[in-house]
Parts: sequence; structure tokens; C-alpha cells
Amino acid sequence: MHNIAVIGAGRIGRIHAGNANSDPRIVLKYIVDPEVSAAEQLAAATGAGVAKLADVLVDSSVKGIVVASSTDTHLEFSMAAIKAGKAVFCEKPLDLDLQKARAAASSFGADSARLFLGFNRRFDSNFQELHELIGSGQMGALETLHIISHDPSPPPIDYVRISGGMFKDMTIHDFDMARWMLGEDPVEVYAAATSVVDPAIGEAGDVDTAKLLLRTGSGKICVISNSRRSGYGYDQRIEAFCAKGLLRAGNVYSSTVEAWSEGGSQSAALQNFFLDRYAGAYRSEMTHFADILDGAQPLVGYHDGIAALAIAEAALESHLRSEAVPICY
Amino acid sequence: MHNIAVIGAGRIGRIHAGNANSDPRIVLKYIVDPEVSAAEQLAAATGAGVAKLADVLVDSSVKGIVVASSTDTHLEFSMAAIKAGKAVFCEKPLDLDLQKARAAASSFGADSARLFLGFNRRFDSNFQELHELIGSGQMGALETLHIISHDPSPPPIDYVRISGGMFKDMTIHDFDMARWMLGEDPVEVYAAATSVVDPAIGEAGDVDTAKLLLRTGSGKICVISNSRRSGYGYDQRIEAFCAKGLLRAGNVYSSTVEAWSEGGSQSAALQNFFLDRYAGAYRSEMTHFADILDGAQPLVGYHDGIAALAIAEAALESHLRSEAVPICY
Amino acid sequence: MHNIAVIGAGRIGRIHAGNANSDPRIVLKYIVDPEVSAAEQLAAATGAGVAKLADVLVDSSVKGIVVASSTDTHLEFSMAAIKAGKAVFCEKPLDLDLQKARAAASSFGADSARLFLGFNRRFDSNFQELHELIGSGQMGALETLHIISHDPSPPPIDYVRISGGMFKDMTIHDFDMARWMLGEDPVEVYAAATSVVDPAIGEAGDVDTAKLLLRTGSGKICVISNSRRSGYGYDQRIEAFCAKGLLRAGNVYSSTVEAWSEGGSQSAALQNFFLDRYAGAYRSEMTHFADILDGAQPLVGYHDGIAALAIAEAALESHLRSEAVPICY
Amino acid sequence: MHNIAVIGAGRIGRIHAGNANSDPRIVLKYIVDPEVSAAEQLAAATGAGVAKLADVLVDSSVKGIVVASSTDTHLEFSMAAIKAGKAVFCEKPLDLDLQKARAAASSFGADSARLFLGFNRRFDSNFQELHELIGSGQMGALETLHIISHDPSPPPIDYVRISGGMFKDMTIHDFDMARWMLGEDPVEVYAAATSVVDPAIGEAGDVDTAKLLLRTGSGKICVISNSRRSGYGYDQRIEAFCAKGLLRAGNVYSSTVEAWSEGGSQSAALQNFFLDRYAGAYRSEMTHFADILDGAQPLVGYHDGIAALAIAEAALESHLRSEAVPICY
Repeated sequence: MHNIAVIGAGRIGRIHAGNANSDPRIVLKYIVDPEVSAAEQLAAATGAGVAKLADVLVDSSVKGIVVASSTDTHLEFSMAAIKAGKAVFCEKPLDLDLQKARAAASSFGADSARLFLGFNRRFDSNFQELHELIGSGQMGALETLHIISHDPSPPPIDYVRISGGMFKDMTIHDFDMARWMLGEDPVEVYAAATSVVDPAIGEAGDVDTAKLLLRTGSGKICVISNSRRSGYGYDQRIEAFCAKGLLRAGNVYSSTVEAWSEGGSQSAALQNFFLDRYAGAYRSEMTHFADILDGAQPLVGYHDGIAALAIAEAALESHLRSEAVPICY
Repeated sequence: MHNIAVIGAGRIGRIHAGNANSDPRIVLKYIVDPEVSAAEQLAAATGAGVAKLADVLVDSSVKGIVVASSTDTHLEFSMAAIKAGKAVFCEKPLDLDLQKARAAASSFGADSARLFLGFNRRFDSNFQELHELIGSGQMGALETLHIISHDPSPPPIDYVRISGGMFKDMTIHDFDMARWMLGEDPVEVYAAATSVVDPAIGEAGDVDTAKLLLRTGSGKICVISNSRRSGYGYDQRIEAFCAKGLLRAGNVYSSTVEAWSEGGSQSAALQNFFLDRYAGAYRSEMTHFADILDGAQPLVGYHDGIAALAIAEAALESHLRSEAVPICY
Repeated sequence: MHNIAVIGAGRIGRIHAGNANSDPRIVLKYIVDPEVSAAEQLAAATGAGVAKLADVLVDSSVKGIVVASSTDTHLEFSMAAIKAGKAVFCEKPLDLDLQKARAAASSFGADSARLFLGFNRRFDSNFQELHELIGSGQMGALETLHIISHDPSPPPIDYVRISGGMFKDMTIHDFDMARWMLGEDPVEVYAAATSVVDPAIGEAGDVDTAKLLLRTGSGKICVISNSRRSGYGYDQRIEAFCAKGLLRAGNVYSSTVEAWSEGGSQSAALQNFFLDRYAGAYRSEMTHFADILDGAQPLVGYHDGIAALAIAEAALESHLRSEAVPICY
Repeated sequence: MHNIAVIGAGRIGRIHAGNANSDPRIVLKYIVDPEVSAAEQLAAATGAGVAKLADVLVDSSVKGIVVASSTDTHLEFSMAAIKAGKAVFCEKPLDLDLQKARAAASSFGADSARLFLGFNRRFDSNFQELHELIGSGQMGALETLHIISHDPSPPPIDYVRISGGMFKDMTIHDFDMARWMLGEDPVEVYAAATSVVDPAIGEAGDVDTAKLLLRTGSGKICVISNSRRSGYGYDQRIEAFCAKGLLRAGNVYSSTVEAWSEGGSQSAALQNFFLDRYAGAYRSEMTHFADILDGAQPLVGYHDGIAALAIAEAALESHLRSEAVPICY
């Protein structure tokens, strides 16, 4: 049994706290949040105590820290926790500033830090099965990959403004998926992006719709399709075109009920919200964090955060310059 | 090249005439219909001549006859054609009167007659593939069978009155499918039937909705589901539950287009009409008739017509007596 | 917060104990099981205490009892708990003996008892949505119903011998589904059953494969299809044929991954185990028990247990007599 | 009734001749092919005569010419036929040389020529339904489009060498689909292409795998995915992402049969050959040609051939220069 603390009592902090509470190997000891009432409410719901970060860091009974605070604090809190000897489960993204994240790398002791970066889709059972099937080689070598990732509806414009832009905020998940499924790092990106969902997003200097092409050193090509608004739920599909056939992971529906009438058959809606779609993935993340507390190596680490950020920056540059841009890791 | 005549210039006669015209081994020489203008119209469209049945029967250049006239003439015309030495392709059902059909059997020279009974579903490529897969044994022995056969909408009440009742008019297709897929004859039938689609059907003494249970000598059980009105197109499905798994033939859709929106995904409608759904089957029937003219044995013959009729009569009796009834072939 | 005890530390008791533990309105106070080590193990895992039934019944702090012990004790323990003033959540079936269960009815204070009978499928979100859609009338009146319920593989023969027979052990779920979906009680049943899965089941006097036809007073017809062994996972489908179209609840797959190759596309297997398929339903059952502890009326009660048992007895009689049998509630 | 001649007795010529023969408004008068035995064989099968092109052009009873000869003759024969006053149904592509095709435009009398260019996919009923739904605006404005078009297996390397390259030979269909579905001309293309299917294709200077991004003047983005070898049949899908949802046209399967077993459900293979997949489209093309002979304007004309070729040339340039390239029509 390992004591942990969760920093951040917001939406995602509540998910992790709940999952920590249900994990037999983890004891949720503290909730940390500058907004005390939020911390107290989550602590009450989970049987945890409320504490300040400084006190948690010096409490030697606390073995792990979940960093689920606002994005601008991810890097700082993670570093502090690592330095204090804790295992860290940090929400994505590591940071919005690639230079800063790169510069901080040495503080993390290169790749040896027990820092687990929460790219949730790697823990979705469907994508895990797809990854395994690609890796098994039974369909022959992977040649090209399509990642479709469309959100149901755009975030509030205030969030868009501080999000770091769609590529760092949303596509970053797909960059990580691409690296993981392709089994190698893309070396070049071309991005075609626009703002058609909401004029306010364009006015804020961001895009809401994009198609990206990644190429790897060995010549694999990956298409990523993004939209901040699908109109039909949370569209999360991956198609892996291999030498002998196609491997696909499809969408998850909210029910199995169909209505057949004169005009055809009406199926259920897609699951509409990422917290529903990836509920199992968040539980698996916590299980993996328990493994790390038991001594395992993180499956996703600091380097993965840097890499995804590097692709995002190159994608932005490609979008601005309208040409393919090499990716510097 | 074999000369043939088509008797009956109605809906189904036109289908067979068109298919005969497209078959490279068949020459459509005559159209026969008491309604002369109908015969002339079809003859003009197909390049055939118009003739009287008596003349066709004595024309030694005519090798085959398609009997697509009204049901009450099927048996008489088929017998006459067989006696005249022609090969016969007779539309289902053979007759509505089992006793009469049985009595006429000797005229047909038992099972040696070149009479092909047009149970169209046996010539549907999907059901043929299903039949072959069941027969291959790769899923283990067939144990139970579900046949779902629902029409889009009921026929006119005037047709219902002369149809011989739903079991002989509609379910007869499913009885034939059951015999073919099961690979043996049912020995007992239980029928639960009702009239809920249209009160006029009930008033005419017929049913429009039924679930039937057939049992074979070896213990296989078959469910048949019928309705004269589905509300969602022509529902034609078969599920074969085998020792190692399930083999199914599904419905045919009018297109592959889907619309995904907030409420879910809307697929295309089912093909709505039997002439669409079984267009390919009708073409294959004519190909088989050409094979017969070339010397092949009919795949579906007189005995199959008698058998399906015998099940239909037993089913009616079961419905009236509310108990399982043995089937006498 | 309501204190409860769970009687029975077996497979299903562990599910209910875990769900009780996760429900914010319930405190799992005691585990009761004659096999002390089983009770202690489950108590340790859930933070509950171990107690004897007699002590639990007189502990006024305990407000609810979950009866998850062996079938032969369901009725006795439920009655004792009701008499002690507890709310009861009793696993199905109520009992295997209809006469005994009927005779005990008065002890339960007719329908007013706070006894919740755990027919888990009523709490599956897919079937709930189907039930709601049927009830909404948007597809017109329900006319006929197909329930397909095939287990992945048969239970051990030792279990079969004490199971009460397939109709009372397995089909009883489908009888309850039929009553719920049809919105009225069947008045007649016809059962065609056989043993083809395992000769030992037949030798034990039981069947393993069945097709049943139920008819309601208003003339609706329901088909139930059962097999103790599907060969392809846990097949749980319902089709509701209505006046304007078809409403269906389909199977649940173990993943969304497909592999397309030369021979076609291979989809994932069905969820193979009822504890996976109905995991959400078991959680919803516990939520409903919390509602009952808060004062709500049970959605499924003693009468429903009697009714399903009455249909099962009539089905057995029909199977033995090979005729339709009226159902006496 | 209009007399026509078919030039070219190869694979595609035979398809058009057969369809012409079945069309009630068309009389197939002549087959033209320098290889006389091929012409004679097709003439015999269709009841047509054999003639030389020069004679056909001066035969005033011939109203239409189908140009189904080798690609390098398309332009010359079409021009000759137009000049001779015939309506022309020319197979795609118009020519492999954009400059030459552009230069010849004046000979065709601009857009007024009765020249119908056979982009078969525009006549597929599924894609027609998709096009109509997009145009109806019921899903809101089209924003982005995905066209997946993978061949089952690569053509012989000898064909590859004279094909004009994948973009002009294969992708040209998708460029036409893109223009048609987008409802406007792309102004820029970026192509990422490679050769992984067969080293011989790369050695011949061609590619066999490509992902292309097109942008229109109004900002719509289109992804095209191509492979010369899928490993799983003929993959032909289009997804139209609109403001309110997604419209898709899916693949066509060779049957509706599924096999469910322990490992999941196995569906039928995709239709494997373009002549099967687009058999209906070819028939509809001939119907449209009959409309043109009756006086209708061609739905696809010379300009469409030029436009698709212009995109193909820009795509090739983009591939070679690794940057987005503007398209000059």
C-alpha cells in the first residue's frame, strides 16, 4: 500500500482521486489545491486529508504525487516532486513551451526519473489491442496510419486562449498515438489547418480544423484528422494499413440499441465525452501508477512529452509556412 | 441455344422473359397469355412472338416452358408441358391443394420429370453461401435455425383472399428454406399465428403474423418468423446455430451511405421489394433452367413443392388446434 | 448512509459486496457465510466485519440485507430478513419450488415487502433503453418479441443437477425479460427443447437447447431462444417487432478492433462472461437498493419472482407434453 | 433508337458494348478494333458488325462513339468523332499530357462539345446519394473530405510503365471525386508518396502509396489516401465531415454472410474487382450516354478531364518538391 497525494481538485483531479481510492494498492492520503473549498470537498468525498504542497513534499510517507493542476504548473510541480524523491503521475502536456521543457530535462535526471506522463489513449484497451496487433506483424509491416480524432464541440473561448493552440492542446494526443503506433519518430510534418468551427477561435489566433501528414525516417506516412467540433460525438478512430491488410480500432457507442424504420436503421450516438470514452483508460493509468510505485518503469515518460511537443511546434510552423517542416527532437 | 416460351405476361413473367432474353443459351420464342395485349406488349419488348399454349405445346422446336401464370394454373400447365416433352420451370407454389398435387404426382413420372420449381431464395448468392458453409461442417453440426422473413407491407386484400392463406403463400418459401438449410425434413410443426397488421386479413380468415417451430427427426429445431408488414423494408435473415458457432446471412441494404449526427448514425433502408432483393436470384434461376435444357437435373423439383405444401397444411392445422402437429409427406 | 450485510461470499456475493463498497450511500458492515474463511477473505478485501446471520438480523443498525447465498436458502433468508424489518436484495431465483414460493407469499406481506429481486438484465442500460423505446410508442404497438440468450458454455454437470433445470435456472431471466418488455403476462407457453450440447445434461434429465413461444392475453407472441453453449461468447439480443418498425438491442463486444484481410473482416469476440456483460447492471442494482433503503419501492419484487417461476413450470410441462400449456400465476 | 459504335474490344470495351446492347434506346452497330479477331469476337457476342474507324466516322447513321481504346488514342479518336458530328463517350483519362489536352481544347469547341468523359464513380449509386446529401445541406456546410481509394493489388509492371504514373492513372479518379464532392476546385495540393508495395514500381520511377491534401479557395480540406495494394479487396470509401455531422459512403461486400466463433465474427470480403464494384455505375454511364444521344448535356465533360489532369500534374510536382503546389487549371 502506497500513500499518494493528488494536486488539483478540478475535473481531472477528481477522476484520478476516485481511481486512486478504488485501487487496492494505493491510499489517497492528501488532496492539494490552492482553492481550499475544492480541496476540502474532494477530500471529504474520498476520505483523504487536505494538505499544502510544501508539506506533502516533505512527508516521507507519501510515495507518489499525481499532478493534475493547471498546465502551467505541470513542469514545476513534477520537478519538485521528483526532487523530493516521489514517483510522479503528471497529466499531459508536460508544458506548452518546448524550450523550457527541454531545458528542464536535466533536472529530471534524463530518462531515469520515475515520471509517468498521462497520455490516456495509450491505456485505452481498444488502442492497446490495436498496438499489439500491429506489433505482432500478423498483417505484415505497417505502411500508413490514419488517426481520426474529432471532439464533439469546442471548448470555451477563454480556454482556447490559454490552451497553447490546438496542436499543443488537442493534436498532442494524436502525435503521441502516432509515435506509439508507428513504432518510430516522425521526421517531418505538413499541416493544413483552418478555423471554420467558430470565428472567435480564428480571431484568437488559433485553428479548429486540421489535417496533418507525418513521415517517419523509414518512410511510413501518417494522416491525422482533427476538428474541435464533430456534431456527432467524440470520434476516435485509428486505421493501420499494413502490407497484408487493415487493422482498425473503431468508435465506442453509447448503447447497442438500433431502431429500424422506413428510412433505414438508426444506431446509438457515439459516446460524447472524453471522460466517458476513456473512463477505463484513466483507471488503467492509475493501475500503472501503482505498478510504478511497486518499482516498474513508466511506460510513458518525460521524453515522450518532449517529443509530442516537438511535433506540435513543427506542425505549427508548417501551418504558418505552408510547407513540410522537419521535426527536431 | 434452346427455344422456350413464357406463359404469363404479368409481373413475374416479365422478369423471367427479360432474364431469358439475356441468357446466351436461351431464345425466348413465345409469350403466352390469355390477355392478348399483355402478351403482345411483352413480346414486343423482348423480340418474342405471341402464341397460344396449345400451339406452343405441339411446336417441337420449343424445348422449355416457363409457367408464370396464375397459381391455379401452375399444376395443369406444368403437367401439359411435361407430357408434351418440354422441360418446365414452374413458379411456386405448385398448387394450393396438397391432395390434388399429390394425386397428380404420378402424371409427372415421380421425381424423374424435368420440372424445376422456382423457389427463388435457393438461388440467392447469400443463402447459397450460407448453405454451403453449413454443409461444410466447419462450424460443427447445425443444431437450430432461425428464419426471419417479414414483408415490407401486406398485399391487397383481394389477393389475400385467393392466396391460399399466409402459410401457403408466404411461409412456403421459409418451409423450403428450412428443409434446404436443415438438410432433412421437419417431422412436426407448431404454429402461433395471429392477425394484427390489418383487420381485413383476419376477417378474410387469414393470419398476417406468425412464429412457427419445426422439429426434424434428428432433433434439430427451426424457428420461422413471419409478418406481412415490417415497417422497415424486406427483412430476410437466417441464423444457423451450430455446435461451434453461428453462421448468419443478413439483410441487403439499398445503399452504403450513413449519416452520423447528434442522435446517432442513420444507415440506409433495407431493399424494400422482393424483385430488387432477389433480382440476382431470378437471373440464377434462368441460368439453372438453361442448365436443365442442356441436360442437368433440376435442383428443386416436384417433390420439394409437395413437401413445402405438406408443412404448410400441417402448420395451418397446428394454428387451428393450438398444438404441435406431425407432418405427413 | 445505510449499513448493510451481504450473505454469501461466493462469486456473486463478492460482486455485490464490491459494488456496495463503492456506493456512497451504503456502508458494507458485515459479510455472512457459513464458510468462515470465505467470509473473512471478503471482509478483509472490503473493510467489512464478519458476522453470523442471527446476529445481523437483530442488529438494528443494519438496514438492508443482500441475499447472495445458495439458491435453496434464498426464500428462507429473505423471509427472515423481511420479518426482522430489513430491506432485502435477493438474488434470483426466489426459489426452485413454485408451490413453496407461493405458499410463503403471505409471510412477505404480499407486494408491500421491501424485497428487491435481482433480475440483473432489467438493470442493463441497453435493455433499459430498449424498454423505454418500446414504451414510448414511437414505433407503434409492440407485436412480437425475439429474445436470444445463449450462454458461452455449459455449467459443470454437478451444477446442472441441482440447478432446477434449464428453464428455472437460465430461461427464467428470459421469462422475466419477456414480461417486462411485453408489458403484460404471457398466458400460454409452448416449449421445444432438447439436449445436444452435452449427453451428460440429457442423462441428468435436463435440456440444454430450447425454443419457446409465449402468447399474451392481447395476442402478442414472444420467441425465446436458449442454448447452454454458443461457441461464440455470450449472445444476448432482443428484437421488438412493432407496428412501424423494429427496435433491437445487440450484443456487446470485447473490443472495437477489426482486422480486414483477404477473407473478409474479423471483428472482436463477444464479451464471454455474464459478469463482464452485466457488470454495469450489477452496479445499477446496488444503486437501486440504495434507493430502496432511502424509501423507494422495489422495481422488481416478490410477485415477479413467482411469475417467472410459474412460466418456467408451464414451459417444462409443455416440453414434456409437446403441447401449448396455459400459465397459472 | 440511336446507332453507336464502340472503339476498342478490350476489357472495358466489352463492358460498354454489353451495356449498350442492353439499353433499349441504343443499337450497337459496330465494333472497331485494329486487332480484328478481338473485334469479331465481341461483334459476334453482341450482334454488332465489325468496321473500320474511318468508315464509322462517315456513316451518318452512327450517332455516337464510345472511345474505349488505349489511353494514347483517347484524345485523337474523340476529336475525330466530335468533328464528324458524333456524340462521344470517352473513357478516362482524356490524355496523359496536360499541355496536349489543353492545346486540343479549341478543337472541341470549348465546353459545348457533346463529349462525355467516363469517370465511372460519379455514376455509382452510393456516391451519387452521398453527393446529393452533401448538396442538400441537411448536415450543414461541408468542411473536410476523406477519400480512401486502395486497389486490391498492383497492376503488372508493364502497365505501370505506360500508365502515366499513379497520380494520372489511379488518383485521377479521386481528384475527380474530390472536385465533385467539394463542389469547387482545389487550388493547392500537397502530396506525400512512396513506393512500398513493389520495388519494381519504385524502380520504374513511380509511386504506389500516397496521401494527398487538397485545399479549395474557400478553405475546404480534402485528404486522399491511395495504395496500389490493400491486401483486403477494393477499398472505396468517402467521408464528408460537415458542420452538423458526418456523411459517409462505405464499402461494398461480396456477401452478407457472417461466421461468429470464439475469436469473433468474420464478415465477407470486400468486392475485389473494380468491374464488380462499379458494374452498376457502368450501366448508368451508358444510360447517361443514351440521354446525351437524346439531347442532354454531358454531366462530365472535357473540362473535367483537363481539371483532373491539372491536379495530377501539380500533385506530382508537390511530391517531387516536398511542398504544397498551387494548381493551375
